[in-house]
Amino acid sequence: MNLKEIGEFGFIDRIAARTTSGRGVVFGIGDDAAAIVTDPGLQTLITADMLVEGVHFDLSFTTPTELGSKSLAVNLSDIAAMGGKPRFALLSLAVPPGLSLEFLDAFMDGFISRAGRYGVALIGGDTCASRTGFVVSVTLLGEQRPDRVIRRSGARAGDRVYVTGTLGDAALGLELLRRGERNGAAVNRHLDPLPRTEAGQALTEAGVPTAMIDVSDGLLSDLGHILRQSGCGATLALDRLPLSAEYLNRIGEMSHDRFALALSGGEDYELLFTAPAGREAELFDLFAHLTLAVTPIGEIVSCPSLKIFAPDGTPYTPKSRGFDHFC
Amino acid sequence: MNLKEIGEFGFIDRIAARTTSGRGVVFGIGDDAAAIVTDPGLQTLITADMLVEGVHFDLSFTTPTELGSKSLAVNLSDIAAMGGKPRFALLSLAVPPGLSLEFLDAFMDGFISRAGRYGVALIGGDTCASRTGFVVSVTLLGEQRPDRVIRRSGARAGDRVYVTGTLGDAALGLELLRRGERNGAAVNRHLDPLPRTEAGQALTEAGVPTAMIDVSDGLLSDLGHILRQSGCGATLALDRLPLSAEYLNRIGEMSHDRFALALSGGEDYELLFTAPAGREAELFDLFAHLTLAVTPIGEIVSCPSLKIFAPDGTPYTPKSRGFDHFC
Repeated sequence: MNLKEIGEFGFIDRIAARTTSGRGVVFGIGDDAAAIVTDPGLQTLITADMLVEGVHFDLSFTTPTELGSKSLAVNLSDIAAMGGKPRFALLSLAVPPGLSLEFLDAFMDGFISRAGRYGVALIGGDTCASRTGFVVSVTLLGEQRPDRVIRRSGARAGDRVYVTGTLGDAALGLELLRRGERNGAAVNRHLDPLPRTEAGQALTEAGVPTAMIDVSDGLLSDLGHILRQSGCGATLALDRLPLSAEYLNRIGEMSHDRFALALSGGEDYELLFTAPAGREAELFDLFAHLTLAVTPIGEIVSCPSLKIFAPDGTPYTPKSRGFDHFC
Repeated sequence: MNLKEIGEFGFIDRIAARTTSGRGVVFGIGDDAAAIVTDPGLQTLITADMLVEGVHFDLSFTTPTELGSKSLAVNLSDIAAMGGKPRFALLSLAVPPGLSLEFLDAFMDGFISRAGRYGVALIGGDTCASRTGFVVSVTLLGEQRPDRVIRRSGARAGDRVYVTGTLGDAALGLELLRRGERNGAAVNRHLDPLPRTEAGQALTEAGVPTAMIDVSDGLLSDLGHILRQSGCGATLALDRLPLSAEYLNRIGEMSHDRFALALSGGEDYELLFTAPAGREAELFDLFAHLTLAVTPIGEIVSCPSLKIFAPDGTPYTPKSRGFDHFC
């Protein structure tokens, strides 16, 4: 069977048949719009991300299942960074003529399996042709109590800066993939990142972070958003950055600067947050329960600039500040 | 100033500066997700549409302002078809290297002006690079009381089938544009369609329609959705189809079959709905107040097939049943 045989509406029916209803879903795929009911007293959080072939992914080394999973993961990461609980997703696909039904089925395997694991109901979207590459556009809705939503703007002088997991692995993985490698943790971090959904909710429920963002464009770029929106600055100690064994082993092949990808490589999808220094013991406890690493990497200061210190204590100037689609 | 100079985040700031807050918007552009509060007791309606260069639009005859306006209009039409009131929009753009900041500013003029006229707040989205064409993906949220939401599945034998406005003009307009014409009502219908938002809400508030859809893929395709989902059939009288003077004047240049584009041309964005025959006087009254044409074009029958009758009363077989992206 191919896509032309089943047609656009056959393909939509094929997706609809695989979706399950969920709490709050009045009706999903199959009408002009989906209808949901949100819980009273909660704020609805909404994010959208578009993934474009040749820009965000390369089909020569990404499987369709990984791509389906990742296209939801990057949105899950945004909801996690607000401390939200993910609920409903819309998926729009622009499909080039050469793409097979098998490819799309495998893509949906990845998407739906990830949605199921995170309690997300696929409720709608759009399908259309593309003259050129494959384009995926996802909208994700989540929810949280108003007093628990964490923004980028709440960092205050004296707060510590923390990051979950390790930094730079996804960017390293992309470089390795471009060089023909297909295995290893870093490669997997790029192909199928793990959003920190559980950690984001645990943090907000504990009321610890003052500001939070996910590391999608690179640490410096994303920390920059927190600093700009909080109207403050920070100091960052490079010897504190959490780097994986694979990163430390392989970074020398990519750059003379062993911090380069950890500072400005994108797509780690770790949580970067600030919290009062007095809450650190509580924080370590919380992350011990999550079995996830959390590392203090700097301090928030009132002077609105970012000062980075090399391991020898001297000031450090980064070559790149992170990813910008238009520069 | 160009896009490279201001960068992705400069461009996002530029859009954010033009958005206004609205009722229910806790915060919009500028964080990992937007936050909204929906009205208690109402259902949230959500739709998404993607517009791809070379498939949905041709930049050689569409201005960026028209495209910005249309990309919201096609989503407004979906919310109108549910009887919903539009509220919040997310806009994602994949921007090819050649596109200027002037183009994007003009695109945003069209989008924001349409949003303002329909009471829609732009609260988020995504911006990224495209290696190939310009891609626009819009998600629109609306709302309605649960008892007033109109689905595709409620048509019953004995109902009449109605359509607003006129049919086939947008498809005629596209043909005229391809032949080099740049003016006229049909051309405008294609370039900047008018969603029937007011009519959709008035219809649902009067409690008249049993089923409703917007005509986006062509009358036969969209009526087919109502019939399939309502588990019934219909008769359709071609001499009842509402056709504009321009359509009647020009259709002969496009097709020997003067009903061809009215039946299977897409993008009219009129409302197609069914209602009990006994409500017709009330319906005509309602549309007189809206100063919009409404025309009964057929009847719902229990036998699940569509029978079309030519003006001479003989059965008519259409050449095409409407637009399918994958066929």
